[in-house]
Amino acid sequence: MAKITKVSPLAPAAFPDLPVIGGVTFATAEAGVRYAGRTDVMLALLQPGTTMAGAFTRSLTRSANVLDCEAKIGGTGTEGAAIIVNSGNSNAFTGRAGETSVRTICEAVAKATGIPAGRVFTSSTGVIGEKLPHERIVARIPDLVRNQDASALEKAARAIMTTDTFPKGSARTIRIGGKEVNIAGIAKGSGMIAPDMATMLVYIFTDARVEQAALQALVTRLTDATFNCITVDSDTSTSDTLLVGATGASGADATGNPEFEEALHAVMLDLAHQVVRDGEGATKFVEIRITGAASDAEARTHGMSIANSPLVKTAIAGEDPNWGRIVMAIGKSGASADRDKLSIRFGDVLVAERGWVAPAYREADGAAHMKGQNLLISVDLGIGNGKATVWTCDLTHDYIAINADYRS
Amino acid sequence: MAKITKVSPLAPAAFPDLPVIGGVTFATAEAGVRYAGRTDVMLALLQPGTTMAGAFTRSLTRSANVLDCEAKIGGTGTEGAAIIVNSGNSNAFTGRAGETSVRTICEAVAKATGIPAGRVFTSSTGVIGEKLPHERIVARIPDLVRNQDASALEKAARAIMTTDTFPKGSARTIRIGGKEVNIAGIAKGSGMIAPDMATMLVYIFTDARVEQAALQALVTRLTDATFNCITVDSDTSTSDTLLVGATGASGADATGNPEFEEALHAVMLDLAHQVVRDGEGATKFVEIRITGAASDAEARTHGMSIANSPLVKTAIAGEDPNWGRIVMAIGKSGASADRDKLSIRFGDVLVAERGWVAPAYREADGAAHMKGQNLLISVDLGIGNGKATVWTCDLTHDYIAINADYRS
Repeated sequence: MAKITKVSPLAPAAFPDLPVIGGVTFATAEAGVRYAGRTDVMLALLQPGTTMAGAFTRSLTRSANVLDCEAKIGGTGTEGAAIIVNSGNSNAFTGRAGETSVRTICEAVAKATGIPAGRVFTSSTGVIGEKLPHERIVARIPDLVRNQDASALEKAARAIMTTDTFPKGSARTIRIGGKEVNIAGIAKGSGMIAPDMATMLVYIFTDARVEQAALQALVTRLTDATFNCITVDSDTSTSDTLLVGATGASGADATGNPEFEEALHAVMLDLAHQVVRDGEGATKFVEIRITGAASDAEARTHGMSIANSPLVKTAIAGEDPNWGRIVMAIGKSGASADRDKLSIRFGDVLVAERGWVAPAYREADGAAHMKGQNLLISVDLGIGNGKATVWTCDLTHDYIAINADYRS
Repeated sequence: MAKITKVSPLAPAAFPDLPVIGGVTFATAEAGVRYAGRTDVMLALLQPGTTMAGAFTRSLTRSANVLDCEAKIGGTGTEGAAIIVNSGNSNAFTGRAGETSVRTICEAVAKATGIPAGRVFTSSTGVIGEKLPHERIVARIPDLVRNQDASALEKAARAIMTTDTFPKGSARTIRIGGKEVNIAGIAKGSGMIAPDMATMLVYIFTDARVEQAALQALVTRLTDATFNCITVDSDTSTSDTLLVGATGASGADATGNPEFEEALHAVMLDLAHQVVRDGEGATKFVEIRITGAASDAEARTHGMSIANSPLVKTAIAGEDPNWGRIVMAIGKSGASADRDKLSIRFGDVLVAERGWVAPAYREADGAAHMKGQNLLISVDLGIGNGKATVWTCDLTHDYIAINADYRS
């Protein structure tokens, strides 16, 4: 695994100021799971009454941690909740030993905090197939409980990084019924997956009160429109995990509130975009807007076919306005298309329509758009009302360098 | 489009000796469609009584040539047949002009040969979205007809090359009812697709007599087991075309003959493997054998998920025995899997079983296998009897260099 130490050129200028979320505190520690000289474990403690919701990888080889979180997430307990995350080892494909590690960590957190083990959620990210040295994590739990700090969310964002080149955070503040409501989240992820290192993990906290079933429905819906619409390399992690905790500390009830939904959507979309912006080797952030498809689902299929095409992604890396590869990706997607009805735009530039290059198109115009850092590719299928937007990055030499160098 | 002029390290030592196929002749010419100083058009003429069968890309944006071939392929005419192929321009996504080009070329061949236009098959491969200068091809048809030569199949293989680094040919000779029967074929293709240049085209000729419906059924079945089981980059051309012509000149009837099927399968598999061996930037030829899947179709889904994973392909490029990425690709494929029942082998080395690394596995053994040029990855799902074998190559810096450099 080659170390690419430079920060992604697509990174935000700075980590955002995150508000304190009432009812949740954080601590980080150096457990030495794999990395030396940096934090690699974070513990979040959420107050009694917190509701939890989540979304998880659909991989059939998902990790013991994911299976455990899935089993617990529907619980509506009024006890507190805890989230403990380590980087450096994914605890995936570690057989029964992986389940033992999860149970041991959960029981240790429960013992140290009084929170039932059934309300302790774990994530592990890092190398696959090696036994998690959970005793190193367990040994730090007393310190993690003692050092809890409401302002330590940025530190938590740093502790969960693996191949990430920058920590990822986002927040929104709204008012509901005269009360201030805060949402703040952190994420890690730089490939859509690399089972060695680059799983996507997302933790979002709010001081709103949201009824558990409503929160889960909202999180599921918003995940489909955000994290499930990004791709770096088409691969899918064994460990992808999103957890949302609503503590209720603000005293405001956001159940079914459309402004809360909008704010949570904004935080999730911002974090999803930051994951793409930290895509391994990425130099371009690409939005792909599909309209006029037979259905929203078919629009998403076309969008992902374009976003995952190695030929499209290498053309973007080369700043080549190669619209023929877009046509190819539409043709192979499996969703409906009619060559003579679709149109393609790079930014505002109409490139192709009616089965051929647009009469007014000049390659210099397409090339000018491709030189930007933030690109927009729009495709109208011309056959229906389905639409979808997906986001990806380009495929560069650095992706190969990061992923092809011998694991050492 | 960067020119990688060195021959693939996976290329065969030499072009094979191809037998003369009775009833079919060839000629090539320099039409100057796009390339200068090389042949770029080939014409094959097949004698009356020839049966034709084919297989084509399933892309919904397929070229005018493909649509025309599909419409004609079921014909059972007793007239002769012609195949005319140009490189340098794919005639894809060229609107109505593309259809005009196909019709013009077919009518010109018909006029020059007496073969009905309905029995003239065309292919075009090269840049997409630019009008085919068909008049340059039409201008060479008289010469192409005059220069027909039964021994010019290797020249034909060279005329249809685009980004290929070596010409591809294969042949088998068998005996049926005391008569010698020959099969010889050529192919081009170096990405599974690059709409600029790298469509896969395959032309196979035999002097056997095969009834048309039987030939088509055979070609469809064998294509599924050969060309549809290879992938370079997961992309799908707008122009992929396979045509098989059976002239009957040997006097032997091969309809339903199992030895003929075996020989045709061998020629198709050899050509398919040569396309993978010329994969853009390839340095490793990889066979992926799936067994124990819920069905053959699910086995193929798992195999293609592994073969198309950028993370698996970059690990192979880096000679990294990264079996975690195989687990990931199985998990994401959508086909059934059980973490605790699957096993993975690199060559003869058992790497993982029962949900974890195999007790006797040493990474040095896996690494030793990965250093070879021809790799075997075997996965047994342990849940059924489905099986499939697919072939791919690695993903290297040269793939990026070939596809990311600005089109000039």
